Amino acid sequence: MSQPLDIAVIGATGSVGETLVQILEELEFPVGTLHLLASMESAGSSVMFAGKKVRVREVDSFDFSQVKLAFFAAGPAVSRSFASKAHAAGCSVIDLSGELEHAVALVPEANPEQVAGLSLPALITSPSASAVALAVALAPLKGLLDIERVQVMASLAVSAQGKEAVGELARQTAELLNARPLEPRFFDRQIAFNVLAQVGAVDAHGHSAVERRLVKELRALLDMPALKISVSCVQVPVFFGDSLSVAVQSRGPVDLGAVNQALEAAASIELVEADDYPTPVGDAVGQDVVYVGRVRHGIDEPEQLNLWLTTDNLRKGAALNAVQVGQLLLKHRL
Amino acid sequence: MSQPLDIAVIGATGSVGETLVQILEELEFPVGTLHLLASMESAGSSVMFAGKKVRVREVDSFDFSQVKLAFFAAGPAVSRSFASKAHAAGCSVIDLSGELEHAVALVPEANPEQVAGLSLPALITSPSASAVALAVALAPLKGLLDIERVQVMASLAVSAQGKEAVGELARQTAELLNARPLEPRFFDRQIAFNVLAQVGAVDAHGHSAVERRLVKELRALLDMPALKISVSCVQVPVFFGDSLSVAVQSRGPVDLGAVNQALEAAASIELVEADDYPTPVGDAVGQDVVYVGRVRHGIDEPEQLNLWLTTDNLRKGAALNAVQVGQLLLKHRL
Repeated sequence: MSQPLDIAVIGATGSVGETLVQILEELEFPVGTLHLLASMESAGSSVMFAGKKVRVREVDSFDFSQVKLAFFAAGPAVSRSFASKAHAAGCSVIDLSGELEHAVALVPEANPEQVAGLSLPALITSPSASAVALAVALAPLKGLLDIERVQVMASLAVSAQGKEAVGELARQTAELLNARPLEPRFFDRQIAFNVLAQVGAVDAHGHSAVERRLVKELRALLDMPALKISVSCVQVPVFFGDSLSVAVQSRGPVDLGAVNQALEAAASIELVEADDYPTPVGDAVGQDVVYVGRVRHGIDEPEQLNLWLTTDNLRKGAALNAVQVGQLLLKHRL
Repeated sequence: MSQPLDIAVIGATGSVGETLVQILEELEFPVGTLHLLASMESAGSSVMFAGKKVRVREVDSFDFSQVKLAFFAAGPAVSRSFASKAHAAGCSVIDLSGELEHAVALVPEANPEQVAGLSLPALITSPSASAVALAVALAPLKGLLDIERVQVMASLAVSAQGKEAVGELARQTAELLNARPLEPRFFDRQIAFNVLAQVGAVDAHGHSAVERRLVKELRALLDMPALKISVSCVQVPVFFGDSLSVAVQSRGPVDLGAVNQALEAAASIELVEADDYPTPVGDAVGQDVVYVGRVRHGIDEPEQLNLWLTTDNLRKGAALNAVQVGQLLLKHRL
């Protein structure tokens, strides 16, 4: 086992941060002192780690030179304000916000070799949950297919937007079932029993930040900088677990037998047979793997591979990947 | 106004059939005698039409030579058993099941010219709700784009599967919110707060019947028999209103200005501006148009057009289209 490492988790009271602290414990990450940090509003509470209560302190006054590694799970604004400060203090940063322009996107199942090239302290992005799921599923297929285009429709769970979004879906649903008038708060309209065509605001070209992030990160993770990726991210009334409908366009016929074999062999993939299919609730949520199902050709198109992916957006898609990146960093560099 | 026509509606007690009877009244369809029919289990009840109660009778014993036009809205089994019998009796059939192999798929906004070529009595399919929505949205764009491929991810409402499916989503949701154990009945697993990767069973190639139907009907409606269409239909926990994420691959750059203009000009389309987007609940449900939003290029791909469609699956997607086809038939042929 490696030498214990002093670590900071920023955003420790949020959905991803809480899960991340749990996973550090579950995976027996060699933690020396654990510093739990949050913005002013969330500081003061306590979080359990390894049988002890750890007090959550304000990130503003933290001296990052005390730690070697920091996980940023507090959202874009906090990452923008404090990640480069931490990095300048000599601390390697694993950021979950996607806000750090020069950070290297890492998914151990897809591009572990990138760790060798990092200068220390490292600046790393743990990609969006959709990009993690896609990278895990497509990395084993890269050698099998001459990929021309990847088309993705991601149906995202509300929990990616935090605990308030989870509460809002529950509250709206209860109000509707009780025939009470609906007053949207967190979302700008009804999310219960509805589908929202976009997640967050869109830019002048009509793309949302999660869509742009997915394209950028997936290209980096697969080391295919010119890959054509079409993406639509929509918000579905699901608490936990993202679902992705994926069509991979290949330049030649797709050998489904070989695809199934490669997916079956991948350690982080649970392949579901053709007479069944995985769903977020009941399969993916709480699990450490990406579920893959509905493996098929396109209708009248042997050059197209269709897949259905589902994954725990807080766990495999976020907290677990970040900790696994930490393990990789620890093994090779720190 | 045309001469009143004696008409039969089969499946009059189902979700689509009920809506169809309402729409016949709303649109002042020239109905002489209205015969409401259903399978044995549903016969005996009454449905209101034009201020009068109309008794629903058994389809088995009905003499179809009494009517000139029959709407089949009772599902595949009933259409298979009785549609050709009705046709043989000299009655034009507008079928909503997609089960009649030699029927002509018709959406008045897409291929109205097909009516002229029909031999009477006519055998017509009112296509699936997804195919209707796609045909309405893509027909005005056919002349503008050199379409290479259409990629569709359809998030379908449970109501397409009937009243029992609607009740099951409500029941499951209430049980979960009350922390009672969940016992799936209509669906084979949890649909509340979940996404199911397929709608109905899949064949040996992994495609569901709704996916195959969509491809076949859309090719016919757009008169593009070799069009490449990729499709995934998934089941979302939404009562009413289908949502479609669409990517149209063109052989040249897409002129978004011209696309917006063509969509804006189409009578059956409500185009939603880029700073907003339509949703099934709140926009499409109860309306007679297809809502189109999120009109944009692909990321780094001016040859790709992305769209978001949402439509009332029972109304515009089914009952309304069937009645509008009836109007077209009446105007030109009957």
